[in-house]
Amino acid sequence: LAHNVTLAPLMAVDWGTSSLRAALVSGDGIVQAQRAVDRGILTVEPGGHAAVLREHFGDWWSLPGVRCLISGMAGSRQGWMEAPYCTCPSGLDELAASLAWVEPGRVAIVPGMRCERDGVPDVMRGEETQVLGASALLGIDSAWMVLPGTHSKWVQVHAGQVVGFATWMTGEFYGMLREHSILARMLPTGEETFDGPAFDAGVALALRGCSLMQSAFGARTLALLDRLAPSERLSHLSGVVIGEELRCRPAGAGARVVLVGSEALTMRYERALKHCGVYSLRVGEQAAWYGLHVLAGRWPS
Amino acid sequence: LAHNVTLAPLMAVDWGTSSLRAALVSGDGIVQAQRAVDRGILTVEPGGHAAVLREHFGDWWSLPGVRCLISGMAGSRQGWMEAPYCTCPSGLDELAASLAWVEPGRVAIVPGMRCERDGVPDVMRGEETQVLGASALLGIDSAWMVLPGTHSKWVQVHAGQVVGFATWMTGEFYGMLREHSILARMLPTGEETFDGPAFDAGVALALRGCSLMQSAFGARTLALLDRLAPSERLSHLSGVVIGEELRCRPAGAGARVVLVGSEALTMRYERALKHCGVYSLRVGEQAAWYGLHVLAGRWPS
Repeated sequence: LAHNVTLAPLMAVDWGTSSLRAALVSGDGIVQAQRAVDRGILTVEPGGHAAVLREHFGDWWSLPGVRCLISGMAGSRQGWMEAPYCTCPSGLDELAASLAWVEPGRVAIVPGMRCERDGVPDVMRGEETQVLGASALLGIDSAWMVLPGTHSKWVQVHAGQVVGFATWMTGEFYGMLREHSILARMLPTGEETFDGPAFDAGVALALRGCSLMQSAFGARTLALLDRLAPSERLSHLSGVVIGEELRCRPAGAGARVVLVGSEALTMRYERALKHCGVYSLRVGEQAAWYGLHVLAGRWPS
Repeated sequence: LAHNVTLAPLMAVDWGTSSLRAALVSGDGIVQAQRAVDRGILTVEPGGHAAVLREHFGDWWSLPGVRCLISGMAGSRQGWMEAPYCTCPSGLDELAASLAWVEPGRVAIVPGMRCERDGVPDVMRGEETQVLGASALLGIDSAWMVLPGTHSKWVQVHAGQVVGFATWMTGEFYGMLREHSILARMLPTGEETFDGPAFDAGVALALRGCSLMQSAFGARTLALLDRLAPSERLSHLSGVVIGEELRCRPAGAGARVVLVGSEALTMRYERALKHCGVYSLRVGEQAAWYGLHVLAGRWPS
């Protein structure tokens, strides 16, 4: 790398809408500690962001020479300080050149990315850092990276750049169907116990369908006619929404797919992708910490 | 027709989950009067159905020789009396032979229909009566009939029989997105003022997409980046969900499509179908009354 790697510690922060996670990363990229608190940006009053970091991560914040780099919705208009989107294609250089400086030389926010597809814009904040972190961590500079979640992202990385991406509201539709639809009264309350065959059947139902607006009704009718036991219904519905996302997968046969996210979610995607004949590998939350670490290595000196 | 047409008046009732509509129909099929009340089956205690009819339609109920025929969710397990589904293909003869008799010779409930597609069942209650009524009313014995609503139905009628149908949760997804999704906070509250170009743009967005889980996020991003004015957003979202349904339309080019339902909804579908190059005709709530009338003409004497 042509950039200097500094050995000062980094306070790496992934600050989203509903959660605040941070790690202390040594100058050589090793995660020393990590913690998460329920202080998503929606819970923070304007002007209160630095105080929240000091309250929950004061021990790291006050370390000598520590720098703080933040990704996620903290850079949105409703966040700490707006960090305008980088336009795709963009990579580490473009992100590092467009940091929003909260405290020059010490605290910065990573911009999100935007792209345009068929006249429709798409945006992300936080995922760009995870994706480029996963790419650096795994030594894979070209792949489809999939980040499951409330707003699931499929990100195409080519030669170390994000060349395009697309969003599916998979987790959000799951939540709405579970809580607010006609399906709600047929679903058990409380925690789901994962049922593999029911999940697979849900994936298959969505894959051979044309729209979630139809396959979700199929899931309801299967329950209504007692072809799905109550204990199978949550896993089945989870399979239906993930299958709906995979039905539209932009990665063709033989593509390399990297799943980035929590073990609970990426295992479901790995299983569903296998059903489609697509093999994938998985990487966890260290992708975000490593992405922030490599960006901090490009910090202007 | 080989069946007797009786000249006694008919109290025709369309009793759904959230509404109760009824008409007084003369023996020759003319609607004399109609009324609707907010007494969907969800509001009625077990055993209370006859009392609700007497309360709101007592003047008709007590007419000499009047008979009462009821379609809709009143025939479900949670309704007045379960009327088991007829299996497709089925037509007027099968429905008339399977009436559930609340009061023999005087009060009956029309069964719903069920079909099976790729191993997934589908069901309807009420729409079978509207569809066969529209077919008789228009003199069209083969067509795709589309009944927009909370659970939109596409029903294939061939030679006077319902040969199959499919459900899209179009109205329900519109409501969930409007009330419970990340889009909610960007949408104006109160009544929508229909905006034709915004609606058309929403239809086009969904038609060129692959999944509502993606096009709904597109609608959100267009609003976020100020490419949709607040006053355009509700019509745009309405176009997105209707476009999602039409993207999957089972009726091929040149098919005859009959839209059955309220003027407000069928006009939107007519407009969106025209966008797809499909011409349609529209029929209103008289389809239900006429369907009940022709079924009553097959009442066993």
